Amino acid sequence: MAGAGMSKFGMFKDKDSKDLFAEAFNKMASSVDKGFDPNDIDAFYLGNFTNDFFVRQAHWGPIISDLIGIAPKPATRTEGACASSALAFREGVFAVASGFYDIVLVGGLEEMSKCSTSEVAEGLAMGTVPYEGNIGFTFPGVFGVLATAYFEKYGASREHLMNVTIKSHNNAALNPKAQFNLSIGDIMNGKIKRSREKGLSLPKWKDEKDFLRDPAANPPVAWPMHLYDCCPISDGASCMLLVAEEIAKNFTDDPLHVVGIGQGSGKGLHAVSSLTSFEATKYAANEAYGMSGLKPEDIQFAEVHDCFSIAEIIHIEDLGFFKPGEGYRAVQEGLTRLDGSKPVNTSGGLKCKGHPVGATGIGQLFEIWEQLRNNAGQRQVPADNLRIGAAHNLGGTGGTCTFTILERR
Amino acid sequence: MAGAGMSKFGMFKDKDSKDLFAEAFNKMASSVDKGFDPNDIDAFYLGNFTNDFFVRQAHWGPIISDLIGIAPKPATRTEGACASSALAFREGVFAVASGFYDIVLVGGLEEMSKCSTSEVAEGLAMGTVPYEGNIGFTFPGVFGVLATAYFEKYGASREHLMNVTIKSHNNAALNPKAQFNLSIGDIMNGKIKRSREKGLSLPKWKDEKDFLRDPAANPPVAWPMHLYDCCPISDGASCMLLVAEEIAKNFTDDPLHVVGIGQGSGKGLHAVSSLTSFEATKYAANEAYGMSGLKPEDIQFAEVHDCFSIAEIIHIEDLGFFKPGEGYRAVQEGLTRLDGSKPVNTSGGLKCKGHPVGATGIGQLFEIWEQLRNNAGQRQVPADNLRIGAAHNLGGTGGTCTFTILERR
Repeated sequence: MAGAGMSKFGMFKDKDSKDLFAEAFNKMASSVDKGFDPNDIDAFYLGNFTNDFFVRQAHWGPIISDLIGIAPKPATRTEGACASSALAFREGVFAVASGFYDIVLVGGLEEMSKCSTSEVAEGLAMGTVPYEGNIGFTFPGVFGVLATAYFEKYGASREHLMNVTIKSHNNAALNPKAQFNLSIGDIMNGKIKRSREKGLSLPKWKDEKDFLRDPAANPPVAWPMHLYDCCPISDGASCMLLVAEEIAKNFTDDPLHVVGIGQGSGKGLHAVSSLTSFEATKYAANEAYGMSGLKPEDIQFAEVHDCFSIAEIIHIEDLGFFKPGEGYRAVQEGLTRLDGSKPVNTSGGLKCKGHPVGATGIGQLFEIWEQLRNNAGQRQVPADNLRIGAAHNLGGTGGTCTFTILERR
Repeated sequence: MAGAGMSKFGMFKDKDSKDLFAEAFNKMASSVDKGFDPNDIDAFYLGNFTNDFFVRQAHWGPIISDLIGIAPKPATRTEGACASSALAFREGVFAVASGFYDIVLVGGLEEMSKCSTSEVAEGLAMGTVPYEGNIGFTFPGVFGVLATAYFEKYGASREHLMNVTIKSHNNAALNPKAQFNLSIGDIMNGKIKRSREKGLSLPKWKDEKDFLRDPAANPPVAWPMHLYDCCPISDGASCMLLVAEEIAKNFTDDPLHVVGIGQGSGKGLHAVSSLTSFEATKYAANEAYGMSGLKPEDIQFAEVHDCFSIAEIIHIEDLGFFKPGEGYRAVQEGLTRLDGSKPVNTSGGLKCKGHPVGATGIGQLFEIWEQLRNNAGQRQVPADNLRIGAAHNLGGTGGTCTFTILERR
């Protein structure tokens, strides 16, 4: 990896997909230490979930290749629901590893906020398997079921989910690209317009959990998922420059190396043996650990797919960071905080950084890039020798999962 | 390539995407000479244009991986409008060539006929670039413009387009998987229900062109594109087994080799320098010829993306089979017929075999497989030493084009 960029994530009524990708591309271009010429790009991969549905336009590969001036170079779209751009990244790696190409641009994109909330819910539900969508499941419902199963099995409760939310907001408050770059404390103190509009008297809560327990501030969506357990609707784009190892020095003296990359598929909830684990995540992790020769304890920090607070807890167990049933305790003890032993979602995660579906996979890898290259500013992981980070991306209800391990040498 | 299969193409009110893919997969499995175990598949790529729009379901990779029993193996969807499964094929090649995987299944899929014709037109228009769709262009309109430009530049006429149509139907009449497996003569003689329903008195035409000139039999769609210049709305699936060269002998003693593979992107008609050529096709062809060391004259037969009759003429020029402006004469002289010097669309092409968008790219390669392995039955190209065939797939208005050259050794 020789460069990486991301647009700000958020809801942008005045920006379209091309504006967002241009923003990410320009950031990426300026991140390449020794510069690069877009004409040297050999091929392009773009992850997008369903701009087909959200803005009634498909076939974004060539639209973006025209936008950034690289047509007639090949442009391929990948789709794996919320993991769409992790797939683009992976195909980019294969394209370079196969020897076909030396310089490959990979990116992700989604434009969601032009739709109504119900339209977004309908579009997102197309990423579940038919057995789920057809019986009326939407994503908060699905993850509400997983949380209920987790609570039942391990004795956790909503209080433990709140620890995830509070940490995510604390990290996002330090991330200027995050959609919600405010801590829960900031929100309690009226720094968010929504609270003011609702006429909430401020300050009235004794602490963050008191705020999150208040149904006026944090209403239920699909029990036990409340508003602050759920990632938002977002627009955004991300991109990254992959180059063959032999020529990396032409671009930077400090590239990152893709040392492990795994992907798995899942059957959907109707056919799983456990509601507290994703088989596809485990498959992907196993593949990536096997390729890299690394173990869970070697991963110094990670971005994981926290579309809902419960998801973060499940993933950190599936990835082997913590034992099954111990993830919620690890969060409780602060181990996943920025200053903990295993920082998770230093960016603020999907919950607070935002989740423009197709942009998320490479958006997560962008955070790993920023951290490993010591560019993360106030949210920089305070480790002396930050060398290995990883990102986990999940599509649908575990239909597609990826795990990618990056190393700075 | 160790195996290939295709469902019948057509409009199937009683079959859904899973039924169609299962049909293609089972055909593929039975085509593997020494058999194979689906559990040995390492990864899966699926081309689909927009089942998102057509059947309101996205994220087909894991749905199909579950269907064929290979979950949790990775499953990735690719999209490039009408070239979606040529992209799946290409990513499968990269995945094997990179050394990541040895046995990769690639396939394509589209389910269109559950929508009304106007809904299909709306869905397909999402594959054009926004400049085209937004001003009201649909595909017959776009290709009508290209035909008009071609006529103006080279002096061709509708009579020349009819030669393409007649040839396509003659070939499709020999292809049991074709949606319209009838010659124009068969149709004139009442073998198609539509003609009978319309109360056309039969036989009333003196020859095939007389039939095609009759606006009652062949009404205009977007001048000069008439009904018989346009490919139909179709449902279908296709798939293919790619294996590393070193292990091919475990599957067959007669594999096909991927010797050239190219892909290009195009900007859309608003930005092209010529309306009688696709830059992305030329880029893809150049890449594939360069990789293979072959020249246009080495390609013994080909499938090209004849979404409309004029498209076939443009492609056979862009691919170098004939000089610019000479394609329509080559068709007129019979050079592209089954018994000509350069047979084109021996399957009947998109026009008659059908065009289930996401299934087409690998559907074309299936025809190359059948011909090179001498399985094409009555439509077998009558050459003594059939060794090299190629397929050209085009997405949108040239936004994505691929060219793939296969060899039997």
